[in-house]
Amino acid sequence: MTRERLYLFDTTLRDGAQTAGIDFSVEEKIVIAELLERLGVDYVEGGYPGANPTDTAFFADKRTEAATFTAFGMTKRAGRSAANDPGLRQVLDSAAEAICLVAKSWDYHVRVALGCTNEENLDSIRESVEAVRASGREAMIDCEHFFDGYKANPDYALACAKTAYDAGARWVVLCDTNGGTLPGEVREIVQAVRAVVPGERLGIHAHDDTGHAVANSLAAVEAGVRQVQGTLNGIGERCGNANLVTLVPTLMLKAPFADTLELKTTQEQLADLTGVSRAFDEIINRSPDRHAPYVGANAFATKAGIHASAILKEPETYEHIPPETVGNRRRVLVSDQAGKSNLIGELDRLGISVDRADPRLDALLADVKAREAQGYAYEAADASFELLARRRLGEVPTYFEVKSFRVMVERRFNALGELVTVSEAVVKLDIDGAPRMSVAEGNGPVNALDNALRKDLGRHQDVIDEMELIDFKVRILNGGTDAVTRVLVESQNRRTHKRWFTIGVSGNIVDASFQALIDSHTYTLLKAGV
Amino acid sequence: MTRERLYLFDTTLRDGAQTAGIDFSVEEKIVIAELLERLGVDYVEGGYPGANPTDTAFFADKRTEAATFTAFGMTKRAGRSAANDPGLRQVLDSAAEAICLVAKSWDYHVRVALGCTNEENLDSIRESVEAVRASGREAMIDCEHFFDGYKANPDYALACAKTAYDAGARWVVLCDTNGGTLPGEVREIVQAVRAVVPGERLGIHAHDDTGHAVANSLAAVEAGVRQVQGTLNGIGERCGNANLVTLVPTLMLKAPFADTLELKTTQEQLADLTGVSRAFDEIINRSPDRHAPYVGANAFATKAGIHASAILKEPETYEHIPPETVGNRRRVLVSDQAGKSNLIGELDRLGISVDRADPRLDALLADVKAREAQGYAYEAADASFELLARRRLGEVPTYFEVKSFRVMVERRFNALGELVTVSEAVVKLDIDGAPRMSVAEGNGPVNALDNALRKDLGRHQDVIDEMELIDFKVRILNGGTDAVTRVLVESQNRRTHKRWFTIGVSGNIVDASFQALIDSHTYTLLKAGV
Repeated sequence: MTRERLYLFDTTLRDGAQTAGIDFSVEEKIVIAELLERLGVDYVEGGYPGANPTDTAFFADKRTEAATFTAFGMTKRAGRSAANDPGLRQVLDSAAEAICLVAKSWDYHVRVALGCTNEENLDSIRESVEAVRASGREAMIDCEHFFDGYKANPDYALACAKTAYDAGARWVVLCDTNGGTLPGEVREIVQAVRAVVPGERLGIHAHDDTGHAVANSLAAVEAGVRQVQGTLNGIGERCGNANLVTLVPTLMLKAPFADTLELKTTQEQLADLTGVSRAFDEIINRSPDRHAPYVGANAFATKAGIHASAILKEPETYEHIPPETVGNRRRVLVSDQAGKSNLIGELDRLGISVDRADPRLDALLADVKAREAQGYAYEAADASFELLARRRLGEVPTYFEVKSFRVMVERRFNALGELVTVSEAVVKLDIDGAPRMSVAEGNGPVNALDNALRKDLGRHQDVIDEMELIDFKVRILNGGTDAVTRVLVESQNRRTHKRWFTIGVSGNIVDASFQALIDSHTYTLLKAGV
Repeated sequence: MTRERLYLFDTTLRDGAQTAGIDFSVEEKIVIAELLERLGVDYVEGGYPGANPTDTAFFADKRTEAATFTAFGMTKRAGRSAANDPGLRQVLDSAAEAICLVAKSWDYHVRVALGCTNEENLDSIRESVEAVRASGREAMIDCEHFFDGYKANPDYALACAKTAYDAGARWVVLCDTNGGTLPGEVREIVQAVRAVVPGERLGIHAHDDTGHAVANSLAAVEAGVRQVQGTLNGIGERCGNANLVTLVPTLMLKAPFADTLELKTTQEQLADLTGVSRAFDEIINRSPDRHAPYVGANAFATKAGIHASAILKEPETYEHIPPETVGNRRRVLVSDQAGKSNLIGELDRLGISVDRADPRLDALLADVKAREAQGYAYEAADASFELLARRRLGEVPTYFEVKSFRVMVERRFNALGELVTVSEAVVKLDIDGAPRMSVAEGNGPVNALDNALRKDLGRHQDVIDEMELIDFKVRILNGGTDAVTRVLVESQNRRTHKRWFTIGVSGNIVDASFQALIDSHTYTLLKAGV
């Protein structure tokens, strides 16, 4: 059976850059383009040359190898020739191999936003496509507001699509610019468009305003379009664009798509999907969504509840795909419902092998249950869990012993008569039997404690200097007077960028934070093999 | 045209509680049930009585008013009568009005997980439904793994559904337990099921493993099911459950659903959707997803790009629905004009009327913007917002003035050689020009500060004695070295049980907590009309 080719068009660097709070530098765009090549997309839309200095600089060179390097622009203005339109000129002067021009296809916007006639807009589309082709490049037209336009005036929307196609556009892309269209309408309207443009020349560009960007893209593919536009991790204006990280595995692994379509992305590239998604979050400085389809840390995690024992018997019947196909992994979370099998599985993952009959295993299980009853949540704190386990197995040396600490926060007037807040911590330690006492200030009590703790660690100093705290989360359990505070600290190694989580629980927030801090310091030393 | 009734079934408190990192207390369950009533759901599934002490305690009383209070359980085990099944007994002994029992419908799982025959499983379904009905309650069956089961053995999956229906189950719910089914298959399989169970007795329970939980739910509704299960903000195991916050507006506002179906949720309740979603995030201590469909802070925000000027001309042609219908608002960074109308609306809600031309309104708007840029979130802290507004209007007396505070947390050995943690706070105040200084201990730094603050408030003592702190939430904004801490304090009047929220933001967690504390004390005095 021959499979039809489906093309992936990535617009992370153009439409994705419309996300509130995101601005890419040229260097970031270069790194992201490399990620997109790892994912095997066919087109990388890099931006709008001429619209801003970053995009102009990015388009000074070709930035892709396997993917077609694509520039975004607008169709020429009415009343100007394509050759004399300065916007179009800058796009044509760029290093792009393909050019995607946005065109109005809703008659209302032609009148209100462009202020020209419907006929003039069709002329713009035709002449712009011809100008791109004359430059020896592949031409595409993004039909803006296509679905709303079709609902308002189907004949005119179809005329726009047909004009682009007749002029020689390789792709006519149907855009749900406002994101309000549902899959049923998408299917119906794509079918109508196929009467004037063949499916292998049509694309879909969906937004997530009703949570249907992915479903609408797939509905359009089922209805015959053969190009899908989207972004990494679904970034984009408002609620975002179609998420390629969700679309690609569905297209490659699920019926009816996997059996009938062929992508440029290989199975090896698919197995790199989780890595690509997480690396992109690093670049945009977002915490990865733990619940993201396919690639989230929890996407194949089960809290051992009623399914626990069955999952351990036959994990694959509780998973819609094998996690490794997308570079993710299975997690059966250690929780208060956990049994011995869970525990052995988790230890195994950490590279700790213990015999099922080893009595230390029962002791560890009792530890975990007792501590979870107090409010510890080891599913979120791998490093603290590893320490707890290795301590029970006698594998954690006493690097240092905390004898006492004190932290003071004071708000008072300084010498200039300004109200200031000062945090100061004192920590008293024993290292190799020798007492040490350090004092330091910080932005708050936890920072002051961390500063004091790491100020003088003797022979451990170099290792600890590589570690830094990067995030700190606080949750109050129970509430009211029995309230218990759970603190999660995220740390990283400055050199390797490896990250880990530690946990502390106490009625006193400073105490809980200090426990998590100490665990992070201890874990750092353990991993350094000190 | 008569519209068919569609029922909403919420499982936030049961399946949502399977989310990694989430565990609800009884008090939290009570508050969440109130939120669900605000959303107008038909069924609140509160948990699994007998499975753990929290759920058993929650089901000691009926916890809903307008919604049907529903318990989750499992069908009886093979080889036991329904009357002798201890699991089923505990569910039947609860205060639930309806009972939803999970049943296997994939023959493979009947064999591997239950270890009984297909026939015995059908008997379990029949007898369990009969036992629920005999107790005078509404019975429902969740057909676990229905779609995978149907694909493996359609006859058996249909037999399970039909058995439940024939035994008198009000609802037979088709569950996509592994979350791997796509909308096309859902549509097809629902149609097949309708040959044995009518659509008005069918429900859908979808998971988001391919990003289709919402699309699958709607596909099932289009194919005829009349009950939709989901959770607030889509929480749930792995990638989560169908998000009711996305589903409800789509069902109420979009064709073909809005024209053909009727929900219990009113348009007024829909206009409260954003508030419900954000309040739930507060309870689970998550940052609201700014890109969430309908309710995200960015869902109607546009970054001034190629659309900017057109959006200003005709905003509604760039929005798929009016943001106010779901309690959200447009964010086009225009003028203070849009902001001012919002502000007047908010003040009006608090019973404060100010003339549009009053210059104090501009000053207040500038205050709010400046403080929100620092990290304050007044949506979540009504009492602090009211204080800010009334201060600008000169309506808040100076009840007391804080000159300084100091708090110390110390961990040390006590006289018995035990490690203990002590928190002690000193607060220096001026009341009516007279200085007062108090010292107190507490469970942690914030409790110590509160105890010191309320120890000696002179003529305000009686009023303050009526107020107590009941919850305390901490969120770290930004992360890293620029981290800022936002503290939300919930307080209540012991006598009237009225509750309110105050907020503090600072690089120092103790400082932020103290601001929120002071606001709560001040608000108490203001409301007492002192």
